[in-house]
Amino acid sequence: MSELSITRLTTSDADFDQKLNALLAWESVSDKSVNKIVDDILLDVKNRGDEAVVEYTNRFDNTSVESVAQLMLTQARLQQALDGLPTEQRNALEKAAERIRRYHDKQRGESWSYTEDDGTMLGQQVTPLDRVGLYVPGGKAAYPSSVLMNAIPAKVAGVGELIMVVPTPNGELNELVLAAACLAGVDKVFTIGGAQAVAALAYGTQSVPKVDKIVGPGNIFVATAKRAVFGAVGIDMIAGPSEILVVCDGKTDPDWIAMDLFSQAEHDEDAQSILVCPNAEYLDAVEASISKLLPTMERQAIIEVSMRERAALIHVVDMDEAAEVSNRIAPEHLELSVEDPKAMLPKIRHAGAIFMGRYTAEALGDYCAGPNHVLPTSGTARFSSPLGVYDFQKRSSLIMFSEDGASETGKIASVLARGESLTAHARSAEYRIKD
Amino acid sequence: MSELSITRLTTSDADFDQKLNALLAWESVSDKSVNKIVDDILLDVKNRGDEAVVEYTNRFDNTSVESVAQLMLTQARLQQALDGLPTEQRNALEKAAERIRRYHDKQRGESWSYTEDDGTMLGQQVTPLDRVGLYVPGGKAAYPSSVLMNAIPAKVAGVGELIMVVPTPNGELNELVLAAACLAGVDKVFTIGGAQAVAALAYGTQSVPKVDKIVGPGNIFVATAKRAVFGAVGIDMIAGPSEILVVCDGKTDPDWIAMDLFSQAEHDEDAQSILVCPNAEYLDAVEASISKLLPTMERQAIIEVSMRERAALIHVVDMDEAAEVSNRIAPEHLELSVEDPKAMLPKIRHAGAIFMGRYTAEALGDYCAGPNHVLPTSGTARFSSPLGVYDFQKRSSLIMFSEDGASETGKIASVLARGESLTAHARSAEYRIKD
Repeated sequence: MSELSITRLTTSDADFDQKLNALLAWESVSDKSVNKIVDDILLDVKNRGDEAVVEYTNRFDNTSVESVAQLMLTQARLQQALDGLPTEQRNALEKAAERIRRYHDKQRGESWSYTEDDGTMLGQQVTPLDRVGLYVPGGKAAYPSSVLMNAIPAKVAGVGELIMVVPTPNGELNELVLAAACLAGVDKVFTIGGAQAVAALAYGTQSVPKVDKIVGPGNIFVATAKRAVFGAVGIDMIAGPSEILVVCDGKTDPDWIAMDLFSQAEHDEDAQSILVCPNAEYLDAVEASISKLLPTMERQAIIEVSMRERAALIHVVDMDEAAEVSNRIAPEHLELSVEDPKAMLPKIRHAGAIFMGRYTAEALGDYCAGPNHVLPTSGTARFSSPLGVYDFQKRSSLIMFSEDGASETGKIASVLARGESLTAHARSAEYRIKD
Repeated sequence: MSELSITRLTTSDADFDQKLNALLAWESVSDKSVNKIVDDILLDVKNRGDEAVVEYTNRFDNTSVESVAQLMLTQARLQQALDGLPTEQRNALEKAAERIRRYHDKQRGESWSYTEDDGTMLGQQVTPLDRVGLYVPGGKAAYPSSVLMNAIPAKVAGVGELIMVVPTPNGELNELVLAAACLAGVDKVFTIGGAQAVAALAYGTQSVPKVDKIVGPGNIFVATAKRAVFGAVGIDMIAGPSEILVVCDGKTDPDWIAMDLFSQAEHDEDAQSILVCPNAEYLDAVEASISKLLPTMERQAIIEVSMRERAALIHVVDMDEAAEVSNRIAPEHLELSVEDPKAMLPKIRHAGAIFMGRYTAEALGDYCAGPNHVLPTSGTARFSSPLGVYDFQKRSSLIMFSEDGASETGKIASVLARGESLTAHARSAEYRIKD
């Protein structure tokens, strides 16, 4: 058995609040040297376009190309990747894509309008973004599931053109990633990465079309670059470390729960796995399962650091208090491993995704349940949502006054505008008032 | 007649694209000294709470209070402001609030779910934010319409507690602003402002409750503070200067169009008013109206600078090209002052709000049409939307697998997880696979 001491907290402790805060504390490091490097790359690509992209790619990815044309993959190449997969993988990828598409179809926003008695029409027009850039990390962190989760909602939204960038350090291509891009309907692929790829998408170059929004995960250089170009283009959220909160009534097989916690911990050393239960003996049982299973894990080293540094087993008085602790944490992933999760649901106010019942392992959501695996981290579920079709659509208000409507409503606008001393506003409205 | 030369562009010019880009160029100034001041205030309020809030408020707003309790307004005080309004203003404010509420009611997102054949349930739970902070500028830039536009969507969303902050330099209170807060259902008001107010809302103090999101306009210190606390709390967009694009077929009274352009220009010197028309004589006529009307405007000085520095009259070949120019600009406000605006609508891809027909003055939308007047500026309508009820709700994915569903879907997850070398994920799913 491995020696692994996991933080144990009890809500009845006087200093529980402080201890929980310390456990949850996470500050993303803003590194000045990274900012400087990224700013220089962004400016250079903005000014020199393709030429700069080629130089940075050759330097950082150890390639030796002469033009961006050599950094483009054809649709035939993507299809080849899909066709080349072992049947089992291809089937799994296709089924996952199908489930993800079916779920996201329900998220599509529709235009609406209504007409008032005097003929005035008000409404909202919903339209897809013209063009979106999808960043996909290269090398070992390349996840085909991430391609599906980012690309499918964009295509469901009706995005006109979806451009994927993926670095290929030392020319290394991930066939599963290309196959996923093929399945998801990605329109163009450039094998570029880092801040130079973000810059190319944000500003456009001779070869890379300028996009309206950039989504997808990346390392600190990519995240810093996305933050910097925000405003010129839209971006998705900047994610913190991944986290899971398991709320258990103490009746799920402790091995299952230990493995669910591991599935979060294996992502990286900063990932956070927390178990909340009103039964102290059950917490002991899960801890024993953890010690038993840890030596059997391929990613034992990562799991061990994550569990030691950031995990916790929290003892609560009852399930109501468990819900309170969960709301306070506002977890990215919440597993309700309880007998009647539907009864508990109304008490849950904040969570990125809620995995209900003993059979709903969080890992199913990462790949193929259907809902998105890009979720708000670090407590931001208090005010934000999973990535969805709505992130690839935007709304325009529609206002069409009839002659009568403009006359009547113009009187209200006139009074309010004059109350704000904005008389051009008032006079503009007053022109449309009938005598 | 006033001498006012307005930029004239023609799409047939060889350098039209460059000239248009130069006209639209807008870089918000990121000021290092402002950043430093704001960072210091944020940290101080985070550490010392009420004490720091009182000190900064006394210093910046020239007050002399001893506690935050003295900086709170009661509901009775808000009601008193509403009751004290002249009847005409009160009626106008009430009608505006009613129209805004009716429109935003249509935006409320609803939870949904569906059940698959094997009993697996998938869905999305939509919930309101717990607590929201609303920043309202003090002094001359205090706009009651802005209180309605920010507060009503939050209350329609079901936000539990809406906390307004408004600075009162030299103790000066704006009765219309307080009346609007009363009508909109604001729950608490603190008469504090600046970065110290943003810090109090973001971190919470002994007296000011911590919120989940901060919305509302403010000066450079407020905008910088909002940007800095983003992540700890949600924020709305950081707005650039306000803009209007009027697309006209040349048949609207030129005085009307001139005044519509003024209604944007009077906001501030950086505001941008652009008219697009296929008829060069009509552009001359509007320019003549501008010269004729300018001397009659209360805010002539501001309008003159804005029109000289940032306005343009753009001649296009036809209405299709007008739509293209509009899509390229992706304006905050788009006025389609044409005979059949509905026919033109399908060609419009990007705009914050679309004002359709000759009677629909943009000013109506600022106050009482119903849709929100907080809109994406500086071309961000390409990827973002008006402020709405959806900004005060968030979504949680719901996943509840049946025993059969977990077994079947677990097989897919297992294959994909092993393809990504995430074996804890795979094993967590495999525990739920039946033999």
